[in-house]
Amino acid sequence: MAIRKGRHRIQEFALIQALARRFAKNSSHLVQGIGDDAAVIAAPAPAWWHVTTDLLAEGVHFDLRTASAESVGYRAAMANLSDIAAMGASPRYLLVSLAVPRTFGAARILELYEGLMQACGPHGVTLIGGDTSASQTGLFLSITLIGTTISGRALFRHGAHVGDCIYVTGTLGDSLAGLQLLAGNKSKRSTPRPSGPLRNSHQDYLIRRHLHPTARIGEGLWLNRAGLATAAIDLSDGLSGDLRHICDASRVGAEIDLGALPISPACSAYAEARRLRPLELALTGGEDYELLFTAPPARQTALERQARTRGFQITRIGFIRPRRFGMQMKSTDGAMRPIPMTSYEHFH
Amino acid sequence: MAIRKGRHRIQEFALIQALARRFAKNSSHLVQGIGDDAAVIAAPAPAWWHVTTDLLAEGVHFDLRTASAESVGYRAAMANLSDIAAMGASPRYLLVSLAVPRTFGAARILELYEGLMQACGPHGVTLIGGDTSASQTGLFLSITLIGTTISGRALFRHGAHVGDCIYVTGTLGDSLAGLQLLAGNKSKRSTPRPSGPLRNSHQDYLIRRHLHPTARIGEGLWLNRAGLATAAIDLSDGLSGDLRHICDASRVGAEIDLGALPISPACSAYAEARRLRPLELALTGGEDYELLFTAPPARQTALERQARTRGFQITRIGFIRPRRFGMQMKSTDGAMRPIPMTSYEHFH
Repeated sequence: MAIRKGRHRIQEFALIQALARRFAKNSSHLVQGIGDDAAVIAAPAPAWWHVTTDLLAEGVHFDLRTASAESVGYRAAMANLSDIAAMGASPRYLLVSLAVPRTFGAARILELYEGLMQACGPHGVTLIGGDTSASQTGLFLSITLIGTTISGRALFRHGAHVGDCIYVTGTLGDSLAGLQLLAGNKSKRSTPRPSGPLRNSHQDYLIRRHLHPTARIGEGLWLNRAGLATAAIDLSDGLSGDLRHICDASRVGAEIDLGALPISPACSAYAEARRLRPLELALTGGEDYELLFTAPPARQTALERQARTRGFQITRIGFIRPRRFGMQMKSTDGAMRPIPMTSYEHFH
Repeated sequence: MAIRKGRHRIQEFALIQALARRFAKNSSHLVQGIGDDAAVIAAPAPAWWHVTTDLLAEGVHFDLRTASAESVGYRAAMANLSDIAAMGASPRYLLVSLAVPRTFGAARILELYEGLMQACGPHGVTLIGGDTSASQTGLFLSITLIGTTISGRALFRHGAHVGDCIYVTGTLGDSLAGLQLLAGNKSKRSTPRPSGPLRNSHQDYLIRRHLHPTARIGEGLWLNRAGLATAAIDLSDGLSGDLRHICDASRVGAEIDLGALPISPACSAYAEARRLRPLELALTGGEDYELLFTAPPARQTALERQARTRGFQITRIGFIRPRRFGMQMKSTDGAMRPIPMTSYEHFH
């Protein structure tokens, strides 16, 4: 009946203490980390706090038969880092909760934390708390990530204006191609059949882009601090789905130039080898964790020059249109069609 | 392979939007609630931020065959509110993540949120985010609660000094008695056999204390703001277990006067009817969500006078002793014995 915590605490304490020693570093604004009723953070100057959380379930978001605990941890952290990047914020504090089945030993829990910290460590993120309990079924992982910006400045989804240019960072579709390659290595049935050779270096690149994506923290900070973007989101569901979120929040439409979508040589080669359309991978592939953002046309020159200076790859892929325009895409032959409400899962 | 979010999003969006409309109120410092990559909170003045999180698993922390979704939500929120109370902080922002099995319909999700907000609403807590996904197995619930205090002031576990008085709020053991009553109503085997009558009003009181506990937010704020307490923790695991946390964090020992433990008339009557020792219920019963705190002897008069003025029930139950003293309890006959390392689960 109801919630009983005490009976699951003994194992939890030993584990949390071990992890606290290993991962919870001191941080100048951290008053109290793991080991009290709550973590305490000092906010000495006016600031905005950005809080994002994800709950991931075994068998739904990840499969421990094919993914390592380290990779599950890494990707879970990266998904949250990417949300913080899309706000233009600096990631600061991490809370990690686990519900752990009996079959998942302490060694794998540490592996999972190592994956989390491999993703978070380079950004100076501090592990400040969490909760660990037993699970009668699968592994569940809940992550809360807190980031900060200066007061009054962040990238929202709702700021896009008619006429703004639409940009993406990096290249699109790589993660989906990598996922399909991994699936194809396990089972030939569930994935497009190979029709030609694919270089090992291309394969490795695409699989790495899937297993070890990079949140665009630096790009988000730059766009926010320089005041260059009007709206931003990270590409977790795929371009067509995430662009819709910006359009809905900003009450605008959008026109995408399919010919402009940035596609990596590896993704092009993969599409050719598997007889797929690379644009479809780019449009619907999820989990690239690139940033999709909008910027006024007057800022275009400054934006592209600054990106070059900083070594950030950005590509203009279309324009914000009035709401009544809807979301349309221009084919390479110039024809306009509505952007389909698909997401990359249809490839599975 | 790895984490796939997109395929579980369609149901999620509709649900979150419905809940956002229903529960996510505006709040003066909330810049962006549900509906962007992260929630954004303005921290305009120097402040300390208190963050606590819990992950609760069906079949481990709660049983949906006997507990309503509303009660699971209420108790989950209350456990987190109690952590914030034990820091002396004001609860402010709530994030709720759910992994939901197919059999758990939208109506019960709303019930669960109603339970959460029934607990949080009176304290002005705002729902600012979360995540909802499918679960292949049971229901999983992750809660993150953020509270604030003024900068430089909070109640920690580590502040107790030798000679300090030890206090508790309210009465002890009620929740365990209520749990046993509920279990007894389902199955006679798993619970002490009744040996005498127990008034309905006592039964109702104890069951209510178990199903609808009250976090001591007001008491925590008072103790912190008035600078009266040196250390505090909330009683979730039971007095013996939680006192140990204060002793470990403060590197001290403790002496508890068993005769002083506050026991409600209902709990006394229950213990008599079931031939149990009420002190054992009080010492080991978990989930009372009362505060256990320490205060210098010089503050005793001011503390007890202010508590009376404010209508807060507090009871002095012992003293902080040197570390080498360990944790001992004085029986009503004056004999001293070590406090056992038991927790209330031994009653099950």
